[in-house]
Amino acid sequence: MRLARDLGAGELALDVAAAPDVVVVGAPPDVAADVIVAELARWPDAFVTDVASVKGAVADAVRDAGADLGRYVGSHPMAGRERSGAMAARGDLFEGRAWVIVPTTQSRPDAVGAVHAIARAVGSAVSVMAADEHDAAVAVVSHVPQLAASLVASRLRDLSDPAVALAGQGLRDVTRIAASDPRLWTQILAGNAAAVRDVLRDLRTDLDEVISALDDLDATDGRGALEVVSRTIGNGNVGHARIPGKHGAAPTAYSTVVVVVPDRPGALGQLFTDMGEAGVNLEDLHLEHGLGQPFGLAEVSVVPGADEHLRQALDDRGWRVHD
Amino acid sequence: MRLARDLGAGELALDVAAAPDVVVVGAPPDVAADVIVAELARWPDAFVTDVASVKGAVADAVRDAGADLGRYVGSHPMAGRERSGAMAARGDLFEGRAWVIVPTTQSRPDAVGAVHAIARAVGSAVSVMAADEHDAAVAVVSHVPQLAASLVASRLRDLSDPAVALAGQGLRDVTRIAASDPRLWTQILAGNAAAVRDVLRDLRTDLDEVISALDDLDATDGRGALEVVSRTIGNGNVGHARIPGKHGAAPTAYSTVVVVVPDRPGALGQLFTDMGEAGVNLEDLHLEHGLGQPFGLAEVSVVPGADEHLRQALDDRGWRVHD
Repeated sequence: MRLARDLGAGELALDVAAAPDVVVVGAPPDVAADVIVAELARWPDAFVTDVASVKGAVADAVRDAGADLGRYVGSHPMAGRERSGAMAARGDLFEGRAWVIVPTTQSRPDAVGAVHAIARAVGSAVSVMAADEHDAAVAVVSHVPQLAASLVASRLRDLSDPAVALAGQGLRDVTRIAASDPRLWTQILAGNAAAVRDVLRDLRTDLDEVISALDDLDATDGRGALEVVSRTIGNGNVGHARIPGKHGAAPTAYSTVVVVVPDRPGALGQLFTDMGEAGVNLEDLHLEHGLGQPFGLAEVSVVPGADEHLRQALDDRGWRVHD
Repeated sequence: MRLARDLGAGELALDVAAAPDVVVVGAPPDVAADVIVAELARWPDAFVTDVASVKGAVADAVRDAGADLGRYVGSHPMAGRERSGAMAARGDLFEGRAWVIVPTTQSRPDAVGAVHAIARAVGSAVSVMAADEHDAAVAVVSHVPQLAASLVASRLRDLSDPAVALAGQGLRDVTRIAASDPRLWTQILAGNAAAVRDVLRDLRTDLDEVISALDDLDATDGRGALEVVSRTIGNGNVGHARIPGKHGAAPTAYSTVVVVVPDRPGALGQLFTDMGEAGVNLEDLHLEHGLGQPFGLAEVSVVPGADEHLRQALDDRGWRVHD
């Protein structure tokens, strides 16, 4: 706390006489409720919020303790970092990140407003949800994707080296977050066990259907089985299309241009300089490295219509460009 | 065929009197065997290969037809594209891509050598595998990741808009390939049904264990259940670490530097120009867009040791840099 104060985070509450307006409890899900209850009792006029990544279990425990729920409002600023402590603090940690405010049914409007003001002050994109709605949402958009990535990556453990060598960009993307910290994720998943389990059960129902269809295809080649496989991939298309695009806007179907980039210092810089000179703004970028080759492919996404101009501009500057 | 000839792909075999040395059959898995058998019969001195993405079923059908297996060698150049036809042809399609050669037990060494020469001539990284080994490998590194991405993305279909808005980079990466073509993937998965099913069954065993553990955690908070969750994520760490790094080399733990990039034309170009001037070669790059914010974060990976120099150089040039 003293280090944080010395770095400019403010004064130590222990030293000041004046009561705080808002107490922000930064504690793991399993102890957050105890701290919230203690702070509500200690500062009878203060609002109290917390930043734990699961909300239902915390609110239930605060309610069960008989605390003053009117002054409690849950929060989930979605800006986790792999480092902790005052030295790792960043002034812009919350900029552009989602901050979910989770009032209880008894939270006072002025308490909600106070937490809202904090979230806005640090630059977050604020939304308000009920606890069960929040927990169900993060189960789908964060917790189950983590488990799926881990389960897919687990399959690689016993694969032969030549087989692993066939890994492409698809596998890399699907399993990138499989490198996450087991201790952290055990806490997160345990704190949202019921919601995660419900989503996993739905996923297992679909998985069972695919396994049965592949069983049928292995034995015969029934039309119904092909329909199941096709529908599974098609449903994935529908779900994927719902993910918002850049800046939280509706998803946009960007046009892509593929450029061959030599593997030497400055080559990517030259590419982006050339794109900047052509007046083209890059919306997204995927780099793919050639297997055993001294170059990579840059897949550049631009707004529809800008691709023809970009292709011509890069071609004029000597780049090897593909659709 | 005539368009391909006019574009410079060679002469039409139908017109030439001389027999070919090698016939490359480019046909979907379900009809590849019939064409291979016909070509083996038509050209009694030619070697025949195919490029279907599943190999066991094709080789079995060629064998069952009583064809001359000595002159047949399977191939799988792993360079699929979303466009087809002669107009979409690229001279460098196979450069740096894996090309798996799949001989049968009766394939003649000179037949294997001829296919090897073609794969090397187009710049592929060649490996040799048995059909069952190949089919098991692509089930793990390609087919099951596709299904997992689709199943995770499917969960988003019925989510509320505010809940979907919480989607972060993790979800985006896990589900990127969920946008793939259902027709194409139905053919691929049906052609490798048995191997895919076997991997999915293993995955389901692990999934069932996680669901049981989460059931226990929802009811009690048993230590054994936490151990299951922790082990699941840990096994994912182990599997993920086996994915080869850039250039097919052993995976390297790169150092990463995070840079704040304003969302305007040329900003990324300036960043990469500055990195080039600092003499730093970029190993990998992830772009993350701020939700509702006019900037993005560029996570730049460099070889360990180069990060301190890069951080200083970018700081000197006015960039906002984070660890």
